[in-house]
Amino acid sequence: MLSLLLIRNKTKKIKKEVGSLQRVYNFSAGPAVLPAEVVRTVQEELPSYRRSGMSIMEISHRSSLFTDLQETAETDLRKLMQIPDNYDVLFLQGGGTLQFAMTAMNLAVKTKRVGFIDSGHWAQRAMEETALVKGTKAVVIASSKNQKYTQLPKIEPITGQFDYLHLTVNNTIEGTMYHQIPAELKKFPLVGDLSSIILGYNYQVTDFDLIYAGAQKNIGPAGLTVVILKHELLQNAPELPAMLSYPKQVQKHSALNTPPVFAIYVAGLVFKWLLAQGGVAAMQEKNEQKAQLLYAEIENSKLFKSPVAVEDRSLTNIPFVTGSAQLNQLFVAEAQAVGLLNLKGHRSVGGMRASLYNAMPLAGVKRLVEFMQEFERQHGGRN
Amino acid sequence: MLSLLLIRNKTKKIKKEVGSLQRVYNFSAGPAVLPAEVVRTVQEELPSYRRSGMSIMEISHRSSLFTDLQETAETDLRKLMQIPDNYDVLFLQGGGTLQFAMTAMNLAVKTKRVGFIDSGHWAQRAMEETALVKGTKAVVIASSKNQKYTQLPKIEPITGQFDYLHLTVNNTIEGTMYHQIPAELKKFPLVGDLSSIILGYNYQVTDFDLIYAGAQKNIGPAGLTVVILKHELLQNAPELPAMLSYPKQVQKHSALNTPPVFAIYVAGLVFKWLLAQGGVAAMQEKNEQKAQLLYAEIENSKLFKSPVAVEDRSLTNIPFVTGSAQLNQLFVAEAQAVGLLNLKGHRSVGGMRASLYNAMPLAGVKRLVEFMQEFERQHGGRN
Repeated sequence: MLSLLLIRNKTKKIKKEVGSLQRVYNFSAGPAVLPAEVVRTVQEELPSYRRSGMSIMEISHRSSLFTDLQETAETDLRKLMQIPDNYDVLFLQGGGTLQFAMTAMNLAVKTKRVGFIDSGHWAQRAMEETALVKGTKAVVIASSKNQKYTQLPKIEPITGQFDYLHLTVNNTIEGTMYHQIPAELKKFPLVGDLSSIILGYNYQVTDFDLIYAGAQKNIGPAGLTVVILKHELLQNAPELPAMLSYPKQVQKHSALNTPPVFAIYVAGLVFKWLLAQGGVAAMQEKNEQKAQLLYAEIENSKLFKSPVAVEDRSLTNIPFVTGSAQLNQLFVAEAQAVGLLNLKGHRSVGGMRASLYNAMPLAGVKRLVEFMQEFERQHGGRN
Repeated sequence: MLSLLLIRNKTKKIKKEVGSLQRVYNFSAGPAVLPAEVVRTVQEELPSYRRSGMSIMEISHRSSLFTDLQETAETDLRKLMQIPDNYDVLFLQGGGTLQFAMTAMNLAVKTKRVGFIDSGHWAQRAMEETALVKGTKAVVIASSKNQKYTQLPKIEPITGQFDYLHLTVNNTIEGTMYHQIPAELKKFPLVGDLSSIILGYNYQVTDFDLIYAGAQKNIGPAGLTVVILKHELLQNAPELPAMLSYPKQVQKHSALNTPPVFAIYVAGLVFKWLLAQGGVAAMQEKNEQKAQLLYAEIENSKLFKSPVAVEDRSLTNIPFVTGSAQLNQLFVAEAQAVGLLNLKGHRSVGGMRASLYNAMPLAGVKRLVEFMQEFERQHGGRN
């Protein structure tokens, strides 16, 4: 009887250890992997934030516990992105999709025309939402729709009047990105959707008049949207309901009602982690190294292909395909079984997609490449 | 040397123990106390949600891990509030303040007139935001402004045409609540702000056409807003940007973009906790017991007074004052020192306010009452 109990307990213990030790790599496009150290800190601090006796979920947004936290998060983000003093930083809700409309409500006030670089699914969604803001006209300036968005649109000299231009800087689904912001776009006020590349590549904030990014890729948990905008933009904004008004949000430091405290807290931890890693320049270097490893494997493979033009390839979202829908499916399933998660591509592109955000360690990409090689040996292409 | 080290370690250990054992009671109006069991579960599950190897912050909102979670949360909320099938349930962002505008955008479409019961600060904010929605007129139907909102407005027969009426069911700042929804209001489509009373008192969903509530009081962490609305309301809603459109949010089950996964997860845990406690009827009973304890102490005291008319007193937000601003300040400071936190009243009412939401245990209210008695013995009033 005793020995049976011992064995049972031992099995339980082993199961528990395997459970907690099991190493998975999460290649999801978002919500995405967070730095392991950040998850650990959140867990440790959860019951009592800064010895307050309250969880971070329970502290008042008017307490110094929170206002200090938010100030530090903003200061760190300013350091990381070298945000000049004439730009405001907002911590909002509603994701990129609300920004598609909010930018138009606040900024499309003179010509009421907004110019779009149609580089993919999210650029299209931005256009649709902008067009739903009454009186606003969304105009396509350049498009790579005819190339199925496998490359970036070619930007010709822009004629016409626009309140601003909108650029999806990294196309999460199609796997393209602007390594340089085209000079022609900078002739107009420029709004950049940086959701899936913010803090992963060293863009100049001053190339943009407004930047927005949903947090759930490179910043923190879902439910937070970071907006960085030139202060002078606020001058012409019309009066709007408070939650939709940049000037009102700026005036109340993103706390005109209860902000998403927990998400801002985790974002703050990620900013500290990024500073400790050496900042955005260091992250870019690591991201280039990771992407290079995967792109090299794709190039060397006889089974896997990238659908994306070489010069426009994204560092953070990397789609790849085999010639066969069945093999793609098998790949995703077998990868999942060995702890390489969420590699299924978006339905509009098909195949696979690996998102290599800041928090994806090099070891994860190495493991993926190894697995691709094993898979190719088993299922064709390479001998 | 050795003994010094021992002492130092012992002191450290004691400090640590005191730190972790210290019992605080958090009377904040929101973000507010959560059930201790819920905080514990979040902490335990944080590194690996359902053995996925991923934190709840890292799981995809398109995965069954999340869609199952959200479905369960909705099912449990429907059970708790007996929400009929002809009502939709939404998990949104932006708080009550966005709902002030969104309700008008979606529902004020025929007469474009919205009638308001002006019962306090948040009713006023709702009116202001509604009036900022172009073309909408916010009309005061009844007001207790002249009574400084220390009682609820008297509702006379309502004449005139309105697309809907708006009622702040519990006034978080002033400490009043509708124990019954006035019959006169039910003659019109009725929108209820239940932010600080939802799940704490057994209101009938069918008394309302639309209910909204910020999560950060009785539901979960900040960054989530629950909306419950009659499906037929959607018929006349105009086309709006997606994040501001009830019909589009309903069609996509609150996931037309990435929803606030973590906040919905915690809300789901709170719903399970409430079911285990016996549901809303049981919570109401406990809340009545807690409130009764505190109101009795106020009535019996020579030092403390309630500014609120007896028949309109809230169960969840209880303001009280001494005659002296200095004593009020001392009370809040001394209470804080013994772990009774966030008792400072809102600046517009002054004095103290104790918020006794579902997660505040009876023991916390007993401790508060004891402390009030001690304070009164020391500082006047009672001998």
